[in-house]
Amino acid sequence: MRAVIMNAPGQVSVVDRPDPRIEEPTDAIIRLAATCVCGSDLWPYRGANDVHDAPMGHEYVGYVEEVGSAVTTVKPGDFVVGSFMASDNTCEICRAGYQSRCVQVHGMGGIGTQAEYARIPLADGTLVATPDRPDADLVPSYLAASDVLGTGWFAAVAADVKPGSTVAVVGDGAVGLLGVLAAKELGAERIIAMSRHADRQSLAREFGATDIVAERGKEGVAAIKEMTGGLGAHSVIEAVGTQESMMQAVRSTRPGGHVGFVGVSHGVELPGDKLFYSTIHLHGGPAPVRRFLPDLMDRIARRTIDPGKVFDLTLPLEQAADAYRAMDERTAIKVLLQP
Amino acid sequence: MRAVIMNAPGQVSVVDRPDPRIEEPTDAIIRLAATCVCGSDLWPYRGANDVHDAPMGHEYVGYVEEVGSAVTTVKPGDFVVGSFMASDNTCEICRAGYQSRCVQVHGMGGIGTQAEYARIPLADGTLVATPDRPDADLVPSYLAASDVLGTGWFAAVAADVKPGSTVAVVGDGAVGLLGVLAAKELGAERIIAMSRHADRQSLAREFGATDIVAERGKEGVAAIKEMTGGLGAHSVIEAVGTQESMMQAVRSTRPGGHVGFVGVSHGVELPGDKLFYSTIHLHGGPAPVRRFLPDLMDRIARRTIDPGKVFDLTLPLEQAADAYRAMDERTAIKVLLQP
Repeated sequence: MRAVIMNAPGQVSVVDRPDPRIEEPTDAIIRLAATCVCGSDLWPYRGANDVHDAPMGHEYVGYVEEVGSAVTTVKPGDFVVGSFMASDNTCEICRAGYQSRCVQVHGMGGIGTQAEYARIPLADGTLVATPDRPDADLVPSYLAASDVLGTGWFAAVAADVKPGSTVAVVGDGAVGLLGVLAAKELGAERIIAMSRHADRQSLAREFGATDIVAERGKEGVAAIKEMTGGLGAHSVIEAVGTQESMMQAVRSTRPGGHVGFVGVSHGVELPGDKLFYSTIHLHGGPAPVRRFLPDLMDRIARRTIDPGKVFDLTLPLEQAADAYRAMDERTAIKVLLQP
Repeated sequence: MRAVIMNAPGQVSVVDRPDPRIEEPTDAIIRLAATCVCGSDLWPYRGANDVHDAPMGHEYVGYVEEVGSAVTTVKPGDFVVGSFMASDNTCEICRAGYQSRCVQVHGMGGIGTQAEYARIPLADGTLVATPDRPDADLVPSYLAASDVLGTGWFAAVAADVKPGSTVAVVGDGAVGLLGVLAAKELGAERIIAMSRHADRQSLAREFGATDIVAERGKEGVAAIKEMTGGLGAHSVIEAVGTQESMMQAVRSTRPGGHVGFVGVSHGVELPGDKLFYSTIHLHGGPAPVRRFLPDLMDRIARRTIDPGKVFDLTLPLEQAADAYRAMDERTAIKVLLQP
């Protein structure tokens, strides 16, 4: 099969790799209907993580080709969505809603879903099938559910967004934008998107943002404070993962408020005294997307949300290098790859 | 009046200071029935904070002597308990339960309640009166409610302790011990006190600890993991405030679990990646004791809890220097001062 490899930072190619096969009775093999490049793929692309001939991609939707002997909930021909963390969905941690920390967790990154086929471990716990084959125009939205929608949704839940909340969103990538959508769906009254890019501001508004703040850092915090009677937002979604974005989130939150942080943390050191005196709640990490999949897939099927709009560029899998470049240079928000 | 002053780190004396008087119509003057030395008073005592001729003390119970013209909820003769943070209890932050971050907040530290009399700002929002004069043997428990009980209780609530929870408590000072008591009252099934001092272990057991772990750091974390099927505790109370104790708390918590941290943070830097991949909830800060006072005072009046047991030494106010020394040398858990 054809599959994407990151040879080294900044270097992506599409190569022949052996077709995956069932290795464990709990595995399924899927044929990718669509895959994509994640903001977190840019960390190794930009040299923040070591990378050498690594299979890439952890977002996926597709058709089940084959299942292992122990798989009972999906069957060949099903259209399925899964998360970037394969989980058994039965252990104590999964049952508490933290499937991304399942005691049997498998990261999909090592497998690489930017490919024609992929092996999905723990298929019963990981994959959720649609009742019927979805309309083609819904495929991008289901693909978004696999990571960026599920992650933005988790961030909003982690930030305790409730009906009537004032929410600020730090980060205008796909996750931040879908955090806006999640906040809207969860009933937030005021949603302040922090963005300085016109195209992203516009999509943020489409997803439900009521206000835009272009300032960052101290000025950004001051703007949020000014809009909230000096108190700060009830809920802040952090979807970047840098020191500046984390502190911007913490400082934009009112006492007793909540920060939901989902930007993969790079080089962040949180000063304990600042956190102590802020009196905020902090929760985040790799999103347990599986917790939210049935609900999110239902909202997509009913067409009440359209998260697929974050894909503003679609390319054939063979052009993966262009996809990475577009996201790195921020000429695209998120690129869908067609195998 | 006589009052305690910290002249410099390690140097405490009792001196004559002017009697406090009503400065704002919202003030009350109280005559202290009892006061005490706080674990946090040891930070300046040990030189961690600058201190020069500072009035000391922020815990207090006493009798109202006089009220300002705007005060309506307490009157001369009332026995009252207040928190170490004076608050209006009416602003949006107070109404959300974060009185320690009230928009009008006054720290009592600058006023100094290790004295015969004290001015309490925002008396209506800050003070809670008992229906009658309490029995003398309940005074230490009401004094505990003023800070250490309220803080331990907040830590347990911040750590989301629920019926059936497994809770670990890092820190065996008065706050940690009363965190044990709070966890027990909130229905925890298993309460693991981390302590290496026989007298504190014994009081922890009296307050409801089911297990003791004497190890610290990595070994302490390993012990908690072993006791919880490898997962970690649902809820961890952090009541120290150092780098080691915070990381011990974070690492002892299961994915999706909660850390409630109330140890005043000194020199702590939380690594963002560790926090991210831990997938825990983190909440804490200066406890909004006022939120809990009516409930705690009711439990004390009904004698269902006996938090006053943390006072294992009682001295006259004039011997404040001995009180500080006993706490610094850990020969006493907490010292009550009688004005």
